[in-house]
Amino acid sequence: MSLGKQYMERINDGRKVWLGNQAVGNVAHHPAFAATVHNIALLLDKQNEPDTRDQLTYRGDKSRANIAFLVPRSKEDLLRRHSALKFYADATFGMMDGLSQYARSLLTGHYANRHYSGIGHAYANKIESYYKFIKENDLLCTGAAHDPLRNDSQPPSRFDEASDPGLRIVRETEDGIIVSGARMAAANAPYVDEILVSFYDPRSREDKRHGYMFAVAANTPGVNIVCRESFVADEPDDHPVSARFEDMDTVIIFDDVLVPWERVFIKNNPEALLKIQRDPAAAALGQHQTVVRLLSNLEFIAAVGHALTSASDRKAFLHVQEIMGELIIQVETIKGLLIAAEHRSSPGNDNIWLPEELPLQMARNLGTRFYPRAIEILRQIGGDALLQSPAKLADFDGPIGHLLRQYYQGTDRSAIERTKLIKLAWDLVGSPPAVRRVLYEQFFWGDPVQAYANQYKDYPKKTLTDPVWNLVDTHSKQYKGPS
Amino acid sequence: MSLGKQYMERINDGRKVWLGNQAVGNVAHHPAFAATVHNIALLLDKQNEPDTRDQLTYRGDKSRANIAFLVPRSKEDLLRRHSALKFYADATFGMMDGLSQYARSLLTGHYANRHYSGIGHAYANKIESYYKFIKENDLLCTGAAHDPLRNDSQPPSRFDEASDPGLRIVRETEDGIIVSGARMAAANAPYVDEILVSFYDPRSREDKRHGYMFAVAANTPGVNIVCRESFVADEPDDHPVSARFEDMDTVIIFDDVLVPWERVFIKNNPEALLKIQRDPAAAALGQHQTVVRLLSNLEFIAAVGHALTSASDRKAFLHVQEIMGELIIQVETIKGLLIAAEHRSSPGNDNIWLPEELPLQMARNLGTRFYPRAIEILRQIGGDALLQSPAKLADFDGPIGHLLRQYYQGTDRSAIERTKLIKLAWDLVGSPPAVRRVLYEQFFWGDPVQAYANQYKDYPKKTLTDPVWNLVDTHSKQYKGPS
Amino acid sequence: MSLGKQYMERINDGRKVWLGNQAVGNVAHHPAFAATVHNIALLLDKQNEPDTRDQLTYRGDKSRANIAFLVPRSKEDLLRRHSALKFYADATFGMMDGLSQYARSLLTGHYANRHYSGIGHAYANKIESYYKFIKENDLLCTGAAHDPLRNDSQPPSRFDEASDPGLRIVRETEDGIIVSGARMAAANAPYVDEILVSFYDPRSREDKRHGYMFAVAANTPGVNIVCRESFVADEPDDHPVSARFEDMDTVIIFDDVLVPWERVFIKNNPEALLKIQRDPAAAALGQHQTVVRLLSNLEFIAAVGHALTSASDRKAFLHVQEIMGELIIQVETIKGLLIAAEHRSSPGNDNIWLPEELPLQMARNLGTRFYPRAIEILRQIGGDALLQSPAKLADFDGPIGHLLRQYYQGTDRSAIERTKLIKLAWDLVGSPPAVRRVLYEQFFWGDPVQAYANQYKDYPKKTLTDPVWNLVDTHSKQYKGPS
Amino acid sequence: MSLGKQYMERINDGRKVWLGNQAVGNVAHHPAFAATVHNIALLLDKQNEPDTRDQLTYRGDKSRANIAFLVPRSKEDLLRRHSALKFYADATFGMMDGLSQYARSLLTGHYANRHYSGIGHAYANKIESYYKFIKENDLLCTGAAHDPLRNDSQPPSRFDEASDPGLRIVRETEDGIIVSGARMAAANAPYVDEILVSFYDPRSREDKRHGYMFAVAANTPGVNIVCRESFVADEPDDHPVSARFEDMDTVIIFDDVLVPWERVFIKNNPEALLKIQRDPAAAALGQHQTVVRLLSNLEFIAAVGHALTSASDRKAFLHVQEIMGELIIQVETIKGLLIAAEHRSSPGNDNIWLPEELPLQMARNLGTRFYPRAIEILRQIGGDALLQSPAKLADFDGPIGHLLRQYYQGTDRSAIERTKLIKLAWDLVGSPPAVRRVLYEQFFWGDPVQAYANQYKDYPKKTLTDPVWNLVDTHSKQYKGPS
Repeated sequence: MSLGKQYMERINDGRKVWLGNQAVGNVAHHPAFAATVHNIALLLDKQNEPDTRDQLTYRGDKSRANIAFLVPRSKEDLLRRHSALKFYADATFGMMDGLSQYARSLLTGHYANRHYSGIGHAYANKIESYYKFIKENDLLCTGAAHDPLRNDSQPPSRFDEASDPGLRIVRETEDGIIVSGARMAAANAPYVDEILVSFYDPRSREDKRHGYMFAVAANTPGVNIVCRESFVADEPDDHPVSARFEDMDTVIIFDDVLVPWERVFIKNNPEALLKIQRDPAAAALGQHQTVVRLLSNLEFIAAVGHALTSASDRKAFLHVQEIMGELIIQVETIKGLLIAAEHRSSPGNDNIWLPEELPLQMARNLGTRFYPRAIEILRQIGGDALLQSPAKLADFDGPIGHLLRQYYQGTDRSAIERTKLIKLAWDLVGSPPAVRRVLYEQFFWGDPVQAYANQYKDYPKKTLTDPVWNLVDTHSKQYKGPS
Repeated sequence: MSLGKQYMERINDGRKVWLGNQAVGNVAHHPAFAATVHNIALLLDKQNEPDTRDQLTYRGDKSRANIAFLVPRSKEDLLRRHSALKFYADATFGMMDGLSQYARSLLTGHYANRHYSGIGHAYANKIESYYKFIKENDLLCTGAAHDPLRNDSQPPSRFDEASDPGLRIVRETEDGIIVSGARMAAANAPYVDEILVSFYDPRSREDKRHGYMFAVAANTPGVNIVCRESFVADEPDDHPVSARFEDMDTVIIFDDVLVPWERVFIKNNPEALLKIQRDPAAAALGQHQTVVRLLSNLEFIAAVGHALTSASDRKAFLHVQEIMGELIIQVETIKGLLIAAEHRSSPGNDNIWLPEELPLQMARNLGTRFYPRAIEILRQIGGDALLQSPAKLADFDGPIGHLLRQYYQGTDRSAIERTKLIKLAWDLVGSPPAVRRVLYEQFFWGDPVQAYANQYKDYPKKTLTDPVWNLVDTHSKQYKGPS
Repeated sequence: MSLGKQYMERINDGRKVWLGNQAVGNVAHHPAFAATVHNIALLLDKQNEPDTRDQLTYRGDKSRANIAFLVPRSKEDLLRRHSALKFYADATFGMMDGLSQYARSLLTGHYANRHYSGIGHAYANKIESYYKFIKENDLLCTGAAHDPLRNDSQPPSRFDEASDPGLRIVRETEDGIIVSGARMAAANAPYVDEILVSFYDPRSREDKRHGYMFAVAANTPGVNIVCRESFVADEPDDHPVSARFEDMDTVIIFDDVLVPWERVFIKNNPEALLKIQRDPAAAALGQHQTVVRLLSNLEFIAAVGHALTSASDRKAFLHVQEIMGELIIQVETIKGLLIAAEHRSSPGNDNIWLPEELPLQMARNLGTRFYPRAIEILRQIGGDALLQSPAKLADFDGPIGHLLRQYYQGTDRSAIERTKLIKLAWDLVGSPPAVRRVLYEQFFWGDPVQAYANQYKDYPKKTLTDPVWNLVDTHSKQYKGPS
Repeated sequence: MSLGKQYMERINDGRKVWLGNQAVGNVAHHPAFAATVHNIALLLDKQNEPDTRDQLTYRGDKSRANIAFLVPRSKEDLLRRHSALKFYADATFGMMDGLSQYARSLLTGHYANRHYSGIGHAYANKIESYYKFIKENDLLCTGAAHDPLRNDSQPPSRFDEASDPGLRIVRETEDGIIVSGARMAAANAPYVDEILVSFYDPRSREDKRHGYMFAVAANTPGVNIVCRESFVADEPDDHPVSARFEDMDTVIIFDDVLVPWERVFIKNNPEALLKIQRDPAAAALGQHQTVVRLLSNLEFIAAVGHALTSASDRKAFLHVQEIMGELIIQVETIKGLLIAAEHRSSPGNDNIWLPEELPLQMARNLGTRFYPRAIEILRQIGGDALLQSPAKLADFDGPIGHLLRQYYQGTDRSAIERTKLIKLAWDLVGSPPAVRRVLYEQFFWGDPVQAYANQYKDYPKKTLTDPVWNLVDTHSKQYKGPS
């Protein structure tokens, strides 16, 4: 049985996925999820196809594994990761992380660095077992890292234990911990195998109750996966992106869930959680994946922008060329930063070979502004022509098809091609998944204003400022002629 | 029978509306249109309701008529127009011009100014008859003013007559003209009674073929109303705006349509069309309506932004308050410009009392930037919380309703109220009608770069510059002490 | 003796003005101040010139006074104020408030509202006397309202009394109070007669020590006027603006200064100070002056932008026309808001006729962004041509004058005219006073981020939000067809 | 005699430098130029100082030469260039290219690529001789590449030969060509040895008259160096940047100048000029220098921003931290792109080792927006405190020095240090050289709108768009489930 088929059968496991007021049964057959699940399955199959197997997998101790699980030991390993991650990103136009390569990269980082985490042996052993379990079974994962009401201005401990809506350990038993509460922003939970739960917020530092990290299978009793409204569209001909991929946002409500001890990696230990958050291997590999995907996404927007410009008479306008130039600059800037990070990669603890974080941080910070701007540019290039297509491509075969063919023709394209292109552009600009992605890129690292502020606070500023203080302290003595 | 009912029966007239590859039958019963048609009908009924009759209508020669048809003869008349237009705009949150008050205002302007248009008696008489026909039957109208492939850089006459995809007169008969071709950007055509067709583009000046202005009923044989994809949403509880109003964009394809002579206002006369475009009464009344609607729209966005801010802990952040301040400034700036235009209103030809155009032009030019920015601000205020609501409000009555009530609570609102508010905000930010409206506001007056350039070119600059040239010519002589 | 002459003699009064490490003697003869003082004197003379006397003054009880002192009792009075304020603003291109009309307007407002201030009789009587003294002697004033290290994040009371660098009352005597400390941002102090001192910061509310308001003559013993670096330029031919007007910034250091009781308006009373800050008459008249001046300033920038565009081949570019359109929109938007404020003026306490504040607040908030943007636009229009002029206009009479005449010619201007125009543009874009003005417009109302946040916080939001909460609360019941 | 002294004597050569209406004599002693010349001399001396000699020079065939003349044959050579260029840039805070390393890098590129230019042997031989002459004598150069009235919208050939204000060959003699006309934007011409003249504008392609490239010594008879107004400031204590460096803009007016044949590299050959413009070695080396300098400049701005933030209480504000984050992101983005360009360097013709151009183009395109934005940020961080310093640092030693010491103290700095820092910040924000640099960075590559448009037009877009057209052509066949 193909990997894709196995996956589709595997996730039909009784999980509680809520979409509207009843539980979804088999997600693979539900209209809101079927297309996405099928496309994920197709991507999984690529691991065994002769053309792509070597690009997407590596030979581990026992068997081949997806490259997301590869602990890099050289720059070549990093570039292999890049190549595979780019393949998956391109397959979704960068619009979705179908195979959960981000969560897998984080886990691989935690595993690689487990002995240097400073958290202890028990943690290291449990992470090792879990990593091997995920890798060997080629499982998909997601993370869930926010409180239900994301609160930027107050610590989670503002609630007393009883009224705390956040996820907390309510008691311990011989078998494990019992947890209750809600967790936000778990992308794709309906389709993955495993949910990793932690609390990355630095504000949790005072707060023992939120100092945990554990994992549950998606079908664990008491785990409720609450979906937002479905954004899936019908007809891939009319909605080339949104009919194919739904990067579903969910809230996980834990209702007295038992987590067995071997899946409880950290407990009542906020300091350990800060170490997890700052784990250099997880951070570098996770961000590397993110930036590769961003590049893929921006390339696709620029490409559609160029196609749209070419198909219209507006290509002659300097101000249209200017904003197209901006799209090109976005793409090549992110690409350059990725090259710099990889070029300046270096071995860390235990010879784990990591990309330099600073250029990746730049790319992701630029990305929070580039992506919304890219979509704005696409909207400006398209203009109101984006709203003039016939309702469906099928209209071209209908009673007035001959009129549509005549009157929707483009400057360099047939009416059907032009209509397809415009529908694609609209799907990237005006569909709910399009707007969702803008929000996602802006808020992926938290409030973008705070993200920029953090970049400043964390930056090593001393060497930067030395020349200034030198100048301020000494400049009056410096001005004199040559000898 | 109520006005609304009459309307719903009236538009079931055999018109050819295409949505997907078959003709829609009765739009009032079609799922894509029913809600909008019902809401228009409700608005029409207001004209006869005792609370609103005097606000929305005026007593004409024979009977009451909608105030959009009132030719203002005093500042008070202008303010009456304002009041009624605001009522309708508020009823749709400024998201739709349900009763086609813009087109009606233009027509009223052309009628009022008909003897001063410089186009001639025949035109004046036909416009007068048509205006009275529309007014007395309280009909809804739309305009259609663009070529199919809106071409900013080349004149329509770049095509020879045979291959011209634009709408043109193909022959004349005793009964009238026969026209064929496509016309873009006819908003709401499926629900209106009448379609007004002209070609306002200044580039048509060289081009006799495009120098026409005429009107057709929506069900005229050969008139095809081609809709874009439907954006209507189900469940007004979950989609408070997009389940109620669909400001449908259409392309009208004329396939050998006979237009009787009494409906052909202008023919083969591009100069006359330029006069129509610059008709001071039509321009002033049309823009007055537009700015009243924009104000309503911006007020609603600011109100939702404030409600959202209040319901979240983020209200404590200065940078959130700053962008909320920006929304307030948008509202009050547009309001101030409207007040200025009305205050500086003055009588024109024949004592038609018109608002000053310049402040209205400012409002509309600011609007092309304010509205997209307002939506961006709403998106930033909402953040990723916009994507975490349960799929439907009905979920609160479902099996996990108790959990949702517990975990979706806001800082000052119950879980249900907060969810409703967030769904409203998302509907304004992330639904296809939301993005459509951003495009609409940006491109309503054509490419916004060109609109700004035109503002510069048309502005009387001489008095502005006189002091500069004085200074340049004389400043060397000017510098001397006091006597 | 002319008013200007009187003024020039009057300010030669022994005041301590520090510019570099020695006291300036007579400012009217000092190279840093002479030109500005002379230009102020010329402006003062206008009050007696037949062409302008009626525009600039009004007939008071005893004699004519400058219109800044007119308490408006009708809309006509407001328009008279507008006309006179505009005259003075235009005379300096809006770059300087030469006759301290802002401070005079504030004082007039405090006087007009003195009986309704809620501060008491003693205050009312002292303000009345002081207002009459200033008015009858036609004195120039400035205000000084900031602590030396403007501290946005902490209250002034963070210092204990001994180490407080801010201005504070150090003891009281029979004759008055003795004050010491520094006060920032006193514009034009070297040239004015009187300095008004208060502490408008709302954070002072907890802080009795900073709850004072008093006035001193500029030459009071112990008053040190510390100037920043002089920005005056030589040669008005080469620097049409910066050789004429220096809007000097100063810090006033009070070194054991005795303020007589009749000049101590408020003492140890922070609540009273908040009332002063919110005095509706002072706020409205002060902002009215500010917006009239801003309009004058933006008109001048737009005019220079247009002249520059016309003198260059770049006028053909759409993106140049677009940003010129933006300058026009700035001018007409501010003008529209001013009209709205005046049109919606209404009588307050005691029939004082005040412009509506909200449109003025909008104008000033827009102004904090419009002005920097206007200068940026002027820079973009000028481009690097701004840096290619000969060093001085006098060069045209020098040995290579014939070559300059040949090679600096513009498209529609002689080499000399074009050079003068470019030097004027550079003076508005690149001179220190030019950059100072950008800072001034941005920070006049405090940190612009906080100013926007305050606009939000102070705005009456309830009526705005009512429709939203209605919709959230009731929308599920609302959707139904027409009767 | 030191290199600096030699230089100072050498440029006292009778050149005709015009500043105001008389010729400057010895620039080294003229107040407008002395400081800059002395600082250049100091930099020249570094080539012989033991600490810096190896960093700044390389051993050529005969003797050591400045590294700007090094033709790179390996990545190490590129990094050597980087290191030396950074040293010089840091020495001027990136505000000036004191040793004309840009022009030298271009010349080195032309020399390196001379046999592959496709222009011919005569050109190759002349360039080789000239390069060796400049290198062996360690001369400073500048370029002059624009017509007097830079005309973006019309070709230079719009003038007939007689009225052409541009530089053109007026006749030929046995000894060489005779040229007359003006040439703009020659930076630093008063202090350099040599002026390289060409016409890089692609519009010159039709225009034989402008198809030349030649070099003249600065003191060639008939060469007039016309300076704009001097921006030099006195007192480096008060103006740490603008008292030291003046990047003087000049127009060169050629008045019947004889250029000997060996200095005429190209003549009447616009095609050759296009090849010169696109010379890959010159482009890559020139841009490499530019980006290294830009990095130095941005680092300095960020450092001053950080010092200013630290010295003020405003560091606690999130919105201040956000814009400081933006400065950090600017620095590290440009640094990353530089790393990428160097890492992806590769050997071209004749094993010349060149940085990849695309990342350098990104850096320079980002730079046209980053630099103005950086200065805007510095202005916002400084706020109106930038205008409150005492006129001169010397004031601290004057009669009220004790008061200044008390009242100008910062949160973490003494009054003197804080004042020095603020004066430095103002010098970068508000002095004429500060604004000049903003213009320079924006317009260095021509109108920035056109520069972005060119980036789009020149970019290889085909591979980008292939996936889009694939999707448009085939996507209807693609949607099917896994096997």
